[in-house]
Amino acid sequence: MPVDLSVISEASLSPVNGVRLGYAEAAIKKPGKKDLLVISLEPGSRVAGVFTLNRFCAAPVLVCKEHLGKQSDIRALVVNTGNANAGTGEQGLARAHQTCEEVARLLGLMPNQVLPFSTGVIMEPLPIDRVIAGLPACIAKLDAANWFNAAQAIMTTDTAPKAASRKVTIGGKLITITGIAKGAGMIHPNMATMLGFVATDAALSQSLLESLTKEAANKSFNRITVDGDTSTNDSFIVIATGKAGGDEIVNAASAEYTQLKQAITELSIELAQAIIRDGEGATKFMTVTVAGGKSEDESASVAFAIAHSPLVKTAFFASDPNLGRILAAIGYAGIDDLDVSKISLYLDDVLVVENGGRAVNYREEDGQRVMKQSEITIRVELNRGAVTETVWTCDFSYDYVKINADYRS
Amino acid sequence: MPVDLSVISEASLSPVNGVRLGYAEAAIKKPGKKDLLVISLEPGSRVAGVFTLNRFCAAPVLVCKEHLGKQSDIRALVVNTGNANAGTGEQGLARAHQTCEEVARLLGLMPNQVLPFSTGVIMEPLPIDRVIAGLPACIAKLDAANWFNAAQAIMTTDTAPKAASRKVTIGGKLITITGIAKGAGMIHPNMATMLGFVATDAALSQSLLESLTKEAANKSFNRITVDGDTSTNDSFIVIATGKAGGDEIVNAASAEYTQLKQAITELSIELAQAIIRDGEGATKFMTVTVAGGKSEDESASVAFAIAHSPLVKTAFFASDPNLGRILAAIGYAGIDDLDVSKISLYLDDVLVVENGGRAVNYREEDGQRVMKQSEITIRVELNRGAVTETVWTCDFSYDYVKINADYRS
Repeated sequence: MPVDLSVISEASLSPVNGVRLGYAEAAIKKPGKKDLLVISLEPGSRVAGVFTLNRFCAAPVLVCKEHLGKQSDIRALVVNTGNANAGTGEQGLARAHQTCEEVARLLGLMPNQVLPFSTGVIMEPLPIDRVIAGLPACIAKLDAANWFNAAQAIMTTDTAPKAASRKVTIGGKLITITGIAKGAGMIHPNMATMLGFVATDAALSQSLLESLTKEAANKSFNRITVDGDTSTNDSFIVIATGKAGGDEIVNAASAEYTQLKQAITELSIELAQAIIRDGEGATKFMTVTVAGGKSEDESASVAFAIAHSPLVKTAFFASDPNLGRILAAIGYAGIDDLDVSKISLYLDDVLVVENGGRAVNYREEDGQRVMKQSEITIRVELNRGAVTETVWTCDFSYDYVKINADYRS
Repeated sequence: MPVDLSVISEASLSPVNGVRLGYAEAAIKKPGKKDLLVISLEPGSRVAGVFTLNRFCAAPVLVCKEHLGKQSDIRALVVNTGNANAGTGEQGLARAHQTCEEVARLLGLMPNQVLPFSTGVIMEPLPIDRVIAGLPACIAKLDAANWFNAAQAIMTTDTAPKAASRKVTIGGKLITITGIAKGAGMIHPNMATMLGFVATDAALSQSLLESLTKEAANKSFNRITVDGDTSTNDSFIVIATGKAGGDEIVNAASAEYTQLKQAITELSIELAQAIIRDGEGATKFMTVTVAGGKSEDESASVAFAIAHSPLVKTAFFASDPNLGRILAAIGYAGIDDLDVSKISLYLDDVLVVENGGRAVNYREEDGQRVMKQSEITIRVELNRGAVTETVWTCDFSYDYVKINADYRS
């Protein structure tokens, strides 16, 4: 059961000028499910991406990096679900290349103008014949209005499609931003991956697009965790088609760049949060904010220590204010010179810990009241610097174990 | 249900010359349970310890470090269960000191000759009146034959006492080593801690005892994980009374030192494994061995990445060979220049992965057969160096969530 995951309507998703999407049921996942997606971009579009740091990264991730590294004119993306093409060695790499070649052939492009993505079972060969057989149907369906279908086509164990749109006026032009994402838990049984694709019709330089992509990822998809397992296939792509007709943004200090970055970051946060709301077995959506750190790394590491702790997550599942567990997680987050006597801890507006110990006026019933909510903010004040970082996570329930243990039994 | 945890008999535990133990039912945990222990050491005993790296370490850990740091002549240890005296601020520190003062007064020692230990609920005040009221009974019961009772007295949610003895002839003298430990999961609900106490009647210099303690901990208690949560109270103490009558071991290169270190390390591994066998909700005991790393850190980090992964642990609970999850964990273990094409993976004697991909002759039924066992070895070959490290862990079951979520509901 997702936690307050908003229902996306097809009508709420705006087409992005210069982007068309086509999907197919290629029987890669199971018959009768959309599982193949092609995204076609007009000439002149710019594309940037960030990818999993997992050394066992999947073949398509390697190919994406190769094709983006050449700064070629990317014109298409192809995504399959049902198979991650990870842990598949040389054969996997060959099949990722073959997928690009086939898309290129059908669209009249060079293979290195195509980026491939896969999500699904690890260590099984990519059924390349089914991928190739499904591609013509994708291309026949290419349409700017297909964002909702595209969000469905990249789902694996997601219980609902994840997508969002917004419009913002930048430099006097109305700009559209639309994105889709998938992921439910970092990996279901052996399903791998978070995927996110965001497109805008704004125009900006390749170097700014790359900076923006990194910064947006860092505040959104890099700030969520279900179980701390980093997938082999995680990919986040931002596309700027430039078709809205405004001047190209080339100055990182400009108001236009700041506005665009903020809008794309906010949309990315919405998509990232949707992944957590749909987290495997999730019953609670938790925002973990750590303030007063000396650096981004420091505040984020404390927030992730809390968000990863199975003990913290099971306590939230039970609505049981065993809040010493949060202190323990802060303590092992890796800050060597942490002065614990300066730490405060809040659950929403309830002060639980002050000066590193139980707050004088804290009453367990107040903690319990907050913990019973479906959305909870944990706020830690380190009181050693000025940097605040936020991470989103979900609780850890029987259903997480059930979903991850019972898959094939 | 512990996994193949051997039943300890009182008769199997040998007294250590120079060590006496006394316990009491002090109603700190609940009435009618042993929850307070005093260990008294003859003059001339040496003591060394290693402690949690958690910055939110408990008050007794701070006091232990202070008293050991002064190199004073430690003559007594005092342990309570039922309350961790962690997250308790200045008051907690005062109460840990007060406990030492009272033990010192009763035994005619200086307070800094006493080491305090606590395990139990975090963030609750230590009930110092009950501790003080219980101490005379502990001291009245001091006896060299009380190791089994002592193992019971330090239990929290452990389902069985954990203790072991061995005898070894070193330098022509028969040496006794006996130890006890507690812990079941790193932390039950908000119960904190792993504690381990090992005593020998061998004689060795303070500096060698300190090296030995660190090395033994590093190969035993620092090589286990249930849930990756580092407790606030973890402590491991080695005592050498010197009462066996042999010459003092002063040379780290001597055969005597090597023999003693090996014997204490083996006994510590046995105790550490007992904690995992009794892990919260454990149904499987897993040995994770990583060979071919360039350094101890590198091999251990890969082993811990596997042992911490909730996805790996739930797959083992289900006996489901989703072995791509192990590859994913290897990939995010933090080795930047890892060449995944050199990696092999075995489940017991079954080759699952070779050259970074599914082994040609691997059949899923072979993986499944091994995974159904209650004890399983996961062996990874990195093929980049000569260092092998081993970590022990358990699987992740419904009962882990139940134990950690249902405590107070």
